[in-house]
Parts: sequence; structure tokens; C-alpha cells
Amino acid sequence: MEGYSDQRVQRTVKSKNLTQVENRVLLADRWHFNGHRSGIIWLTGLSGAGKSTLAVELERILFAKGYQVTVLDGDNVRYGLNADLGFSPADRVENIRRVGEVAALMARTGVIVVTAFISPYLADRERVRTAHPDLFHEIYVAAPLAVCEARDAKGLYRKARAGEIAEFTGISAPYEPPTAPELVLDTGQQTVEQSLARLVFYVESHFVLDGAALAER
Amino acid sequence: MEGYSDQRVQRTVKSKNLTQVENRVLLADRWHFNGHRSGIIWLTGLSGAGKSTLAVELERILFAKGYQVTVLDGDNVRYGLNADLGFSPADRVENIRRVGEVAALMARTGVIVVTAFISPYLADRERVRTAHPDLFHEIYVAAPLAVCEARDAKGLYRKARAGEIAEFTGISAPYEPPTAPELVLDTGQQTVEQSLARLVFYVESHFVLDGAALAER
Repeated sequence: MEGYSDQRVQRTVKSKNLTQVENRVLLADRWHFNGHRSGIIWLTGLSGAGKSTLAVELERILFAKGYQVTVLDGDNVRYGLNADLGFSPADRVENIRRVGEVAALMARTGVIVVTAFISPYLADRERVRTAHPDLFHEIYVAAPLAVCEARDAKGLYRKARAGEIAEFTGISAPYEPPTAPELVLDTGQQTVEQSLARLVFYVESHFVLDGAALAER
Repeated sequence: MEGYSDQRVQRTVKSKNLTQVENRVLLADRWHFNGHRSGIIWLTGLSGAGKSTLAVELERILFAKGYQVTVLDGDNVRYGLNADLGFSPADRVENIRRVGEVAALMARTGVIVVTAFISPYLADRERVRTAHPDLFHEIYVAAPLAVCEARDAKGLYRKARAGEIAEFTGISAPYEPPTAPELVLDTGQQTVEQSLARLVFYVESHFVLDGAALAER
């Protein structure tokens, strides 16, 4: 704070006196070693649409195929990095901002990062895309609200309707669908296996380097 | 915020209504595939002690030896994830907390994460160790203040002495050295090459799996 508050307006980065260090390992060299590109597979959609299920299954399949891959979701972010954040609009914005930055840091290490967050605001997702256009792949997990609510595997919609959960996306908080996602998965109609097959095809089409042979596990 | 404020006292995690997803790829399987364990090589020490130089060179050497490795430092964290933070005591605490959590997330992906932050407060570093005891390796980059100030490669000590930089570690803000680090590098006496050799030996002693042969690049 002291002496730095006026910088935020000028450059959005609060700290100064930073120097750049050279000799970093190039991302292209990481890709070459791993046999595949890296990036962010950003799953967005309502609670219950299947984001976490798809993310974890996609991770399992890609890992078995020899990819460097990981999942970021509420399980490993909400209890650690973002344990100070709740579900208010301001906290949701900051939650998604941090997830985007962490996913980008990981992706620049050579890893395919699958994120599974409702991420209801279009502006938040566009901010991640704009900050990391070379990495960002937006996947709309598009089960309709009626389907998600009918499933209600976690009982959250029931609680939200009963007023026991405030600001629940789709019920008492907005969800803004993607306008131009790289892929749409209709998880209201398709089975998990069908959606997974499309995700795996998408990754194999966009991330595998020409001539690379991954070492299957 | 709304409706969640009382939870922070009870469990320190602000959000509820989280469910755990199974079928995650095991860390041990990631290690087996990569041929080495993962973890956090946490470099701590004064500005000018050589943390970033050592981190970037260590990354380069380990990458060439076939490790999954990356660096977290001011370069890639201050401009993105922690762009909202300055150098006040409160911001430094939050900076290190987030770095620790991100390093742990990356390390749980199978990567050796080398962090290069002054991280002047003992309590902050202990918090990372306590949260992730299986991953944390504290390396004290221990050039004395007089040496760092005499080098002053970035001219920061001169500015700090002139009062142009507030709260500069070692001058106008405290540095609390580690009490039981895994490794001490006397970068006041040793050359970069000597310190690097000790770091590489440390990694090869602690991270390589029995019988694993890494694919050198």
C-alpha cells in the first residue's frame, strides 16, 4: 500500500522495481519434450451440468494417453488459494480472475489445465481469454437449467429454491452463456461418454504436435 | 460475503456446498511417469542474494536433464495473479500465501516448482510448510546484507537508503532467516556455479525415483 496506491491506476500492476530475468525455458521446448501443446480447457456451465465429472474423467483419459494434464476446480482451489473467497459477485470475480492466472501459469509450464468452474459471468471469462489468448479454449457445458435442477445430485437446487443458499447461479444469480465458445457439449442430451469422446477428439485435434508420439501409460 | 461470514471462524474455508470428486490421477502415478518426485524448492533470502538467478539456471539445467520443472517468481506472479498486491506487510503476507498455494497446486501436478521470493517472514514460510509438508523444501540463499548491498545490481539498495523505496527488506523492513532450512547456500562466498551444483545435487538426491532414468533433452 504505502507509496504504491497511485500506481494501480497507471499500470494495474501495483509493484515496481521488478527486473526481468532471461534464460527461461521456452514454452515451445516444453511442448516439444511433452509431445503436445499446452493450454487451458475452460469448462463453463451451470451447477450440475457435469463440469467436474467431465474434467476429472478427461484428466484420467489424457493422463493415460501420455499427456501432462491437470484439473483445477473447487476441490483444490476453494480450500487453498481461494479459501478467503465466498460466492458474492465480487468474490466470484476474484475467484475466476485467480483461477485464470493460475491456469495460465500452469499451462506455461507445459500442462493442459482443465478448469471446472461455473464461471457465470461473460466478462470474467473474456478477461481470461484476453489475458491469455494463446492458451484459452472455452467449452460450454450446456445442460439446460431444468435438467440440472431435475438431477440435483448434490441437493443444491432444492436448497437454493428454499432460500437456504444465497446467490445460487441459475436460481438467484445470473448465468451468462458463452457467445462464441470453441466447443459446446449438450450434456442435457449427450451421455458423459459422448461428451468425453468429443473433448478427447478436441484435444487430439488441437494439442498434439505434428509427428509427436505420446508415451501411453 | 452474504451469509458466509460466520464460516470463516469455524473452518477458515469460506465456501460451503462443495463436493469431492473421485477418480483423480494419483500423484504417485504422475511421479512414476515423470521419473521423479515433485515438490517446492523454496528459495528465500535478501534482494540481490541470487534467488532469481539460481532459480532460472536451476530450471534450465533440470529441464535439460529431463525434469518437469518451472519457476515462480516476481516476473510471472507480480504481473498476473498478484498484480493487486504491493509490498506492505499485509500484501507481502498475502503474496506469499498465494505463491505457496499455487506452488503446491503445480507440484501436485508432478512438477518441481522453484520459487524465488524474498519471503522475509518466518511465519509465512512456516505456513506454507505446514500446509504442504510433503512438498516443501526451504533453501536459504544466504548472502549477507553487506554483500547484497555492495552488489546492488538493480540499484534498489541505493534507492532504499535514499528513502525512495519504502519498506525495503534488510533496510527498512525485516528479514527473518530460516531456523531449520533443508539447505543453506552461502551466495556471499560461493559462485553461482557452486551454488547451482549444490542445488542440482540436492534435487538429484531427493527427487529422483529409485531406478528411474530420465530422458535427457
